[in-house]
Amino acid sequence: MVGLPARGKSLIAGKIVRYLKWLSVTARIFNVGSYRRNDNPHPDANFFDVNNTAGEQARRAAAEAAVADMIKWFSNKKNKVGILDATNSTKARRKWIYEKITEAKLLHIFIESKCDDESIIMHNILDVKTTSPDYVGQDPEKAAQDFRDRIKNYEKVYESLDESEKDYSYVKVTNVGHQVVINRIQDYLSSRIVYYLTNLHIKPRSIWLSRHGESEYNVLKLIGGDSNLSPRGEEYAKILPELLIKSGIPKDQKVVVWTSTLLRTNQTARHVVEQLGFRKLEWKALDEIDGGICDGYTYRQIAEKWPEDFAARDSDKYHYRYPGGESYADVVARLEPIIMELEREENVIIVTHQAILRCIYAYFNETPSDESPWQKIPLHTLIKLTPRAYGSKKEEFPANIPAVSTYRAKGEVEEEAGDKPAE
Amino acid sequence: MVGLPARGKSLIAGKIVRYLKWLSVTARIFNVGSYRRNDNPHPDANFFDVNNTAGEQARRAAAEAAVADMIKWFSNKKNKVGILDATNSTKARRKWIYEKITEAKLLHIFIESKCDDESIIMHNILDVKTTSPDYVGQDPEKAAQDFRDRIKNYEKVYESLDESEKDYSYVKVTNVGHQVVINRIQDYLSSRIVYYLTNLHIKPRSIWLSRHGESEYNVLKLIGGDSNLSPRGEEYAKILPELLIKSGIPKDQKVVVWTSTLLRTNQTARHVVEQLGFRKLEWKALDEIDGGICDGYTYRQIAEKWPEDFAARDSDKYHYRYPGGESYADVVARLEPIIMELEREENVIIVTHQAILRCIYAYFNETPSDESPWQKIPLHTLIKLTPRAYGSKKEEFPANIPAVSTYRAKGEVEEEAGDKPAE
Repeated sequence: MVGLPARGKSLIAGKIVRYLKWLSVTARIFNVGSYRRNDNPHPDANFFDVNNTAGEQARRAAAEAAVADMIKWFSNKKNKVGILDATNSTKARRKWIYEKITEAKLLHIFIESKCDDESIIMHNILDVKTTSPDYVGQDPEKAAQDFRDRIKNYEKVYESLDESEKDYSYVKVTNVGHQVVINRIQDYLSSRIVYYLTNLHIKPRSIWLSRHGESEYNVLKLIGGDSNLSPRGEEYAKILPELLIKSGIPKDQKVVVWTSTLLRTNQTARHVVEQLGFRKLEWKALDEIDGGICDGYTYRQIAEKWPEDFAARDSDKYHYRYPGGESYADVVARLEPIIMELEREENVIIVTHQAILRCIYAYFNETPSDESPWQKIPLHTLIKLTPRAYGSKKEEFPANIPAVSTYRAKGEVEEEAGDKPAE
Repeated sequence: MVGLPARGKSLIAGKIVRYLKWLSVTARIFNVGSYRRNDNPHPDANFFDVNNTAGEQARRAAAEAAVADMIKWFSNKKNKVGILDATNSTKARRKWIYEKITEAKLLHIFIESKCDDESIIMHNILDVKTTSPDYVGQDPEKAAQDFRDRIKNYEKVYESLDESEKDYSYVKVTNVGHQVVINRIQDYLSSRIVYYLTNLHIKPRSIWLSRHGESEYNVLKLIGGDSNLSPRGEEYAKILPELLIKSGIPKDQKVVVWTSTLLRTNQTARHVVEQLGFRKLEWKALDEIDGGICDGYTYRQIAEKWPEDFAARDSDKYHYRYPGGESYADVVARLEPIIMELEREENVIIVTHQAILRCIYAYFNETPSDESPWQKIPLHTLIKLTPRAYGSKKEEFPANIPAVSTYRAKGEVEEEAGDKPAE
């Protein structure tokens, strides 16, 4: 990372790592500040003055320790992307990093976050003074002033990436994607990271997630299929517009509803589209996980007909692929364009299926892949996610309409008891 | 488009249009040169001199006519992307275009192709002097000299996109992707086009396409499934390394073999990987079109069991979606990341399935979507595609190993006669 303090470097680094981990690419942040804090937990702005030799030496030592650890971390071949989170604000520092990395036979990409929009910087400063470990227990006003002084010290020596560094691979993002300069991006993973970066925005927004209402197949405990909503599922569909309003959905023409191509999600979204006037988009990529030969059976029947498959799925549910169907890993791969589009959009309502919501939720929540397929996402409950600087705020709005449970715990052949459908 | 002559503008415009059409986005190029040629088919370099008032007026009139036609074309709401292919080399010209487009309530994006790599420019000049309608029937050497003079005339007034135009949406590509500057790209389609542009390269390479060898299901005329190769399919797999060598595959560690996740493509690629030492990558996105409820049946059985579906598929095969399965349009959507990665790669061998190859081939050949699902791609035949400035060169290498035909003509309930398998 390259950039002055309060330019969103750690935020960007965090998002990249979360995105990569979701794609099963092992990634880790090496934050130079936390190395430096080992020796000096609460430095004031003077520490960051270019003329402070002791400060300069300490900061250099922290950078060296972080880079050394990162290079060591790469000796494990499954580790793919390390992010050195620091200002790296001079050409000399970047040259040193480039040489260290190239010497270790690793590829590099410099990601510079530039920002001259005062409102974004102020927002970041407010964020830092309340959350940075450097200012724990200090008066917020004094912390903000000290942090501003620190930034001034960095500004004195700051050199933006430019033509003289054209042999490096780099991407320079100004004002969160308003302008992006991409230089010498050659490998696949770098190109994916750059594309991801160009899609980010920081406008405030929320994402509403809902499973379809209870379906006829749910009532019969059958997996997959393309059945209609049950009468109780239809009740949920009818109440969904009210639930969305209660949760604070804006009455805005830009809100968009995404569904899968299957009947049950379209039936669930119908009243929302009609009553609230939102646009609707159907995505094949939002269809439920493909059960292959198991589609249309109950879990009990699957356990009886294909006991080895049933056991294999329980032992590694994320990677297990239904014969002729999909694994959770396959679902994540096909959801990748959905996530990219979700990063670009503002307020979105997604009405989809249990396995799909588990994967989408795992992206926002950084759920590890071995836990992700076991997440409980009940029927007839609206979830509102509001992305924050670090992580997302989750709110649940239950409709209080009974539904069966479709949650099957590991090792069980039946779903948990839900509400029994009326006879 | 923005850029001096011989900077690959028409090539880039052509690729963008081909890519968009493949994604069912209606797109068209408006080439100012061809408007100008209506009045002046073979102008010499003087015509392009800034001090030639008559020339300047004629070129301005051609640009006006092209822009007027383009704006008229947009009155049909299904037309989505128009490309004004011209040098548009001054700020004044771009301002005029921006105003015309904004006045018509259309979005804009300027794509500048800059190039200071002499070898690329020379290559383009050679291309132009032999193919441009401006020089038809002229001595190639004189044509090249005149074209160079024309470029000099443009260079006198050329202004690259810069900070003063920061309110425009633009992307500036230098030396075919070596450096890319992206400014104010805000809508979805523009972001897709920009991502596509950043993935292009012009290194010479070929792409080898093959269906899997004849499978047990092919012999039984069943669609879908995940069966093994038939004995004749296995013969094809064994001969494939030799066929690739005969077709000129380089013995290069960078060649990569892509297969689907299904048995028959992996079995077909096995000997290639073992004997030629190429890396192999399995893509779920290369799996055969999902036949849904029809999977595992013969066409005749499908026609009998679901006569309405069978007829619906024949009447619009591209958009027809098998119940619980996919349409060709769905396949194109999931192949999009494959195409993007294929643009990035150099030599690639793809071993996959009939419907998938039809879609990939349609991308390279600009096959209309109503014809694409009816293309004949026989078993046991290696296809080598070599991308050229305009279109691709196609070579076929038949293995001369008998196979059944899997080609079913519109309205038929049986495949064409192929070679009968040995009893």
